[in-house]
Amino acid sequence: MLVVGENISVISKVVGDAIKERNAEPIIKMAKEQKEAGADYVDVNIGPATKNGEELMQWIVKSIQAELDTPLALDTKNISAIEAGLEVHKGSAIINSVTGDKDKLDILMPMAKKYNSKIVGISLTEKGVPPDVDSRVEIIMEIVNSALEHGLPMENLYLDPVVLPVAVLQEQVHNCINALKVFKELKELMGLPGDPKTIVGLSNVSQSSPPELKSLINRTYLSILLSHGLDSAIVDPLDRELMNVVKTFNILTNKILYAHSYLD
Amino acid sequence: MLVVGENISVISKVVGDAIKERNAEPIIKMAKEQKEAGADYVDVNIGPATKNGEELMQWIVKSIQAELDTPLALDTKNISAIEAGLEVHKGSAIINSVTGDKDKLDILMPMAKKYNSKIVGISLTEKGVPPDVDSRVEIIMEIVNSALEHGLPMENLYLDPVVLPVAVLQEQVHNCINALKVFKELKELMGLPGDPKTIVGLSNVSQSSPPELKSLINRTYLSILLSHGLDSAIVDPLDRELMNVVKTFNILTNKILYAHSYLD
Repeated sequence: MLVVGENISVISKVVGDAIKERNAEPIIKMAKEQKEAGADYVDVNIGPATKNGEELMQWIVKSIQAELDTPLALDTKNISAIEAGLEVHKGSAIINSVTGDKDKLDILMPMAKKYNSKIVGISLTEKGVPPDVDSRVEIIMEIVNSALEHGLPMENLYLDPVVLPVAVLQEQVHNCINALKVFKELKELMGLPGDPKTIVGLSNVSQSSPPELKSLINRTYLSILLSHGLDSAIVDPLDRELMNVVKTFNILTNKILYAHSYLD
Repeated sequence: MLVVGENISVISKVVGDAIKERNAEPIIKMAKEQKEAGADYVDVNIGPATKNGEELMQWIVKSIQAELDTPLALDTKNISAIEAGLEVHKGSAIINSVTGDKDKLDILMPMAKKYNSKIVGISLTEKGVPPDVDSRVEIIMEIVNSALEHGLPMENLYLDPVVLPVAVLQEQVHNCINALKVFKELKELMGLPGDPKTIVGLSNVSQSSPPELKSLINRTYLSILLSHGLDSAIVDPLDRELMNVVKTFNILTNKILYAHSYLD
């Protein structure tokens, strides 16, 4: 499983303050911790970033990559901030994310192609969260078609079935599993030239649940999704129990070789 | 998930001593603890029981059911001890287990039918563990055919794909998952009149692994198997983290209603 570390987000006070003061140190520290804990990508969520988004994204990308050899997931609704970030990013970034809205797709898909980036296509539109599995699949098919149209390689496309909080929308959590199963069949269903990947923003599932339940809910949901072929997840890699479940899953499905010390 | 509590086994010293002394108290205590922790059935493994097996099984069944309203899984290779147990058992027992050997099937299937028992059919033969998924499926089909022949209702048949220790036979652990997937399709594949259930002896997977890994391996494997439709497992119901995973699985797949207090 490709691990995207979620911890650098403007909603955290430490990150918010660091951004305001353009103090890169705490952000670099968080990137390092996550990489050491097993993150393959580090997500950088700068929020809506309506003011100075371009400058902010370039600052954060350059600051992290000056100290650390890690690719980033650029996470904001500000499309020109995404492009500014891609301009200075070393290696192949992830664009996180594009919804099924045509105007967004027509800008972000060519951008992903131009910068050889990966892109998360999420089964949401401006109208909100799709109410059932079929609507999720419909939106995702729009996204896949847009990727095809703009010549994005299928393996650079990460499809996200939308994880919602089990405490608030329990049925949607089950729908998300079922949507993932369909996403895994898309190559065959749509006759695609390659297999698109799948991804989720895992921690959403335990939002609004009591703190003592969060990790249990997250890791159990991750086990279920991995069992259905999930390729990647945006998670807190510092949650050791969660990462242990990922390692154990890989052992039990014969992806890595068992040793008594496999957790170390 | 139907939970079968595994703790009353002759390999435990407490149980071994209690059996030798015909002292029912520790056995009844273990049955109670397991029931309170969520066991739907309590397994009673009396070992090979070549001497006085019939008397021993009747004693243990009567002792537990005199104090506790729980059905039991009768677990021994001594077939006449099984029948002796069924004669005095209140409610519908589980026969644990029958292998794919014709001589065993021809005795135990009619016995399950006669006593309206459930029966675990395990994809093993006297020749040993099947080396691949196909061999597991072949053996299970023999067992299903024997159940059909003897008129056992499909819903009383529990198919076991054979869990083996990941520390010793890692590939077999993955084969077991894949065999389970096929077992879940048998109704359609074989045109069966009903859906056979599935079951595993979970703790085998972590046998020979260090103690600190056992629960993690068990519960991660259980999540994977539940994701593929496992109906029942023979487990240690006193492993609270394991039982919490089962509850969380049921929440995330919308089988029981979420409440912040769902673990209580």
